Amino acid sequence: MTSEDTLRRLTDVIESRKPAAGGDPGASYVARLLARGPDAFLKKIGEEATEVVLAAKDMQHGASKEALIAEMADLWFHSLIALAYFGCSAQDVLEELARREGRSGIEEKALRKALARQAESESTRSTGATP
Amino acid sequence: MTSEDTLRRLTDVIESRKPAAGGDPGASYVARLLARGPDAFLKKIGEEATEVVLAAKDMQHGASKEALIAEMADLWFHSLIALAYFGCSAQDVLEELARREGRSGIEEKALRKALARQAESESTRSTGATP
Amino acid sequence: MTSEDTLRRLTDVIESRKPAAGGDPGASYVARLLARGPDAFLKKIGEEATEVVLAAKDMQHGASKEALIAEMADLWFHSLIALAYFGCSAQDVLEELARREGRSGIEEKALRKALARQAESESTRSTGATP
Amino acid sequence: MTSEDTLRRLTDVIESRKPAAGGDPGASYVARLLARGPDAFLKKIGEEATEVVLAAKDMQHGASKEALIAEMADLWFHSLIALAYFGCSAQDVLEELARREGRSGIEEKALRKALARQAESESTRSTGATP
Repeated sequence: MTSEDTLRRLTDVIESRKPAAGGDPGASYVARLLARGPDAFLKKIGEEATEVVLAAKDMQHGASKEALIAEMADLWFHSLIALAYFGCSAQDVLEELARREGRSGIEEKALRKALARQAESESTRSTGATP
Repeated sequence: MTSEDTLRRLTDVIESRKPAAGGDPGASYVARLLARGPDAFLKKIGEEATEVVLAAKDMQHGASKEALIAEMADLWFHSLIALAYFGCSAQDVLEELARREGRSGIEEKALRKALARQAESESTRSTGATP
Repeated sequence: MTSEDTLRRLTDVIESRKPAAGGDPGASYVARLLARGPDAFLKKIGEEATEVVLAAKDMQHGASKEALIAEMADLWFHSLIALAYFGCSAQDVLEELARREGRSGIEEKALRKALARQAESESTRSTGATP
Repeated sequence: MTSEDTLRRLTDVIESRKPAAGGDPGASYVARLLARGPDAFLKKIGEEATEVVLAAKDMQHGASKEALIAEMADLWFHSLIALAYFGCSAQDVLEELARREGRSGIEEKALRKALARQAESESTRSTGATP
């Protein structure tokens, strides 16, 4: 089973849970999120991103990798639900990533900007930003 | 009742819910969060920040202000719990804000940096940042 | 200087930076955020909430409290900007918190629900939630 | 080019940017994030998750899908960096998702719990959770 298979199969399952495809909010977690609308799964994305951060900080201090992988799986799974709700897919995201990758020299360009941002951010930190 | 009173009273209540003060996780929501430790209330901070964002976007599209105020109250309340857990208080945060406010010229300095960051960020956006 | 004073003064400063009050995006960080609109300061709320989480996790592993207080100040400051943009204020949030505090028995009620949620959440964690 | 290819190629690029692999923080955005350590890319995950939420809310109110796809690409890309830093990979996350998918009846089980959580959450909302 390849990773491509996994993303496609999950996407197919999520698509089959849409109200228009007969998804039953009384019988499916995904159908229920899709039926409740954007705030339901967007809250989960914010929540799961925070849990990824917590699990990563715990790994930084010695925890094993299971929690990070599990939280990242939750984050990506709810990402797939959001994409499906809005008529997009994992394939769109991967094509966008491949498109960026294809542009030569992009990393150097991004780097110059990031270095400028870092310098700026560090001086902002030292002074605060109020008001 | 002043806002200062409110923050002080809430802080006093939260302090009284600490395990060392006899807070009972079986009888108090705050005591339970404090007893479960940082991840419990830090997850709430990430969750409530996302709900603030959702409520604000709804206001941008015509919703009334009740949800934004309620979500901000949730965010600040869980902020107070986090501060108390780590031996800090709202007073520390307000003193930090007052301290920043007192520095003359700070806004102009922050502004110069923010303008640089904006310029940088906009060009990063147009190129992506991969890899 | 009381904490109430600080919140009121910061609110007054932010109000004076609104475009209608003559705030100059070329001369004020706050005026610039208010002029750019909701996404500008909502991104900051998400970013600063994450930085609060990071600083708190570092304190859990021995860091001092300065970073947590500074990040919380950033989070609250950008909260005040969001409130002002949408015609709300810190006072509204504090009144909402005082209103909740005034309801007798509320903590016990919240607790019963939170305990149910915890039990549920723990069993969800053990099984995952896909699909 | 399959999606699997994309995730593998991106992972290979990120791996080649690790300090031990000779990644140069002065020449690569990824190498710089990896060299600066967890907080650098974890902040980005919190920031990009918020930008996904903002783009999704804009789509809910009529915006086109480009921004959502671009923000999701940013979120996933920084997820890959976090995974690589901690010795994990997209493959681990996809295997976790496939593992969950393989468990029969899991959705029904998750659903029962989610329905209980929803009922609880709605009553919490109506009463607030302070203190």
